[in-house]
Amino acid sequence: MGKVRFGVAISLDGFMAGPGQSVEHPLGAGGMRLHDWAFALAAWRRMHVGLEGGVENASTQVVEEALANVGAFVMGRNMFGGHPGPWGDGSWRGWWGETPPFHAPVYVVTHHPRSPLAMRGGTTFAFVTEGVEAAVARAREAAGGRDVVLGGGASLLRQALAAGLVDEAGVSIVPVLLGSGERLFDGLGGLALEQLRAIEAPGVAHLRYRVVR
Amino acid sequence: MGKVRFGVAISLDGFMAGPGQSVEHPLGAGGMRLHDWAFALAAWRRMHVGLEGGVENASTQVVEEALANVGAFVMGRNMFGGHPGPWGDGSWRGWWGETPPFHAPVYVVTHHPRSPLAMRGGTTFAFVTEGVEAAVARAREAAGGRDVVLGGGASLLRQALAAGLVDEAGVSIVPVLLGSGERLFDGLGGLALEQLRAIEAPGVAHLRYRVVR
Repeated sequence: MGKVRFGVAISLDGFMAGPGQSVEHPLGAGGMRLHDWAFALAAWRRMHVGLEGGVENASTQVVEEALANVGAFVMGRNMFGGHPGPWGDGSWRGWWGETPPFHAPVYVVTHHPRSPLAMRGGTTFAFVTEGVEAAVARAREAAGGRDVVLGGGASLLRQALAAGLVDEAGVSIVPVLLGSGERLFDGLGGLALEQLRAIEAPGVAHLRYRVVR
Repeated sequence: MGKVRFGVAISLDGFMAGPGQSVEHPLGAGGMRLHDWAFALAAWRRMHVGLEGGVENASTQVVEEALANVGAFVMGRNMFGGHPGPWGDGSWRGWWGETPPFHAPVYVVTHHPRSPLAMRGGTTFAFVTEGVEAAVARAREAAGGRDVVLGGGASLLRQALAAGLVDEAGVSIVPVLLGSGERLFDGLGGLALEQLRAIEAPGVAHLRYRVVR
């Protein structure tokens, strides 16, 4: 059976996003700096924005592994493309464009029901109102033995960790101190982890943990 | 000139000590688990407790480097051996025993003046009431070109980082979530860091940063 896993970048002081998050600034003040190491990579540019150029380094493997063997994704409403309240006339199709980089079923956890959206390139967005556990169960089924990747945000990841739904957590620690914002690991004292690996790369350290059940 | 540096272990959620710290439990609930990786090492056992046995692994180098080329130490009062108020009759000589593992001058930042203590094995404790900046200045002078190591606790390290006194920070990230306690990096948003290295070792990832001035 596939794993349920995620991989995120956090600041050395533990934040996945800086202060002042909003629909316009989903990563908050300074939060984009958490992803500088990824934006520089040829692998990231190719997969996410269809661009040439970029570098290869020790982070390449981490990015390639993150998107290999993925059968389905689960994400929070803000990561689909935040929306202040119900979906309205349904014309808002998220902020990933008409060809999102997922190429697989994506389950969006939201309080507001909505019919599924079929995008180009194999991405479908289904909207799940029964919570993260139900979303992960549906994603597992859709993944057909491949992995389920939790895309974020922090709140969804915390809920999934607290509910014992996560097999592996990838944490890329970036040499930035944001001072405030949204923490990945708030309120999870007592969760047992086992370190699987640590990879040094330019401007980032990629750690991976198994969540012990 | 020597560097001013520190090396500490923190939980993956950022704590140097768990909740409920006290003189009897200086690392708080669960905090001892932050040091399991070190206690297992032959290098640590030899240097700190004069014991045989223990293992050699990728952490050995980190522990040996931490105690190489050290000319002086600076630490907070609680790390010398917490004392609730003034020093009283002066009979309390800290909790490091009569032969502390420092073998160098140690400057203890405290609000309460006290005459210096000469211990066995080359350790002297001097008590500095003018704050961390003055303590680091005195340690630099005593170190004579070798490094000054900040021993902790978290509050002293935060003060030193905020005051721009630190050249290098070693952060050993342990796969433990403490949930609450004392954080190393609270309130330091905006401090600029450069990642120097990341070393994978059993049960811990050793990261090192340069503080950019």
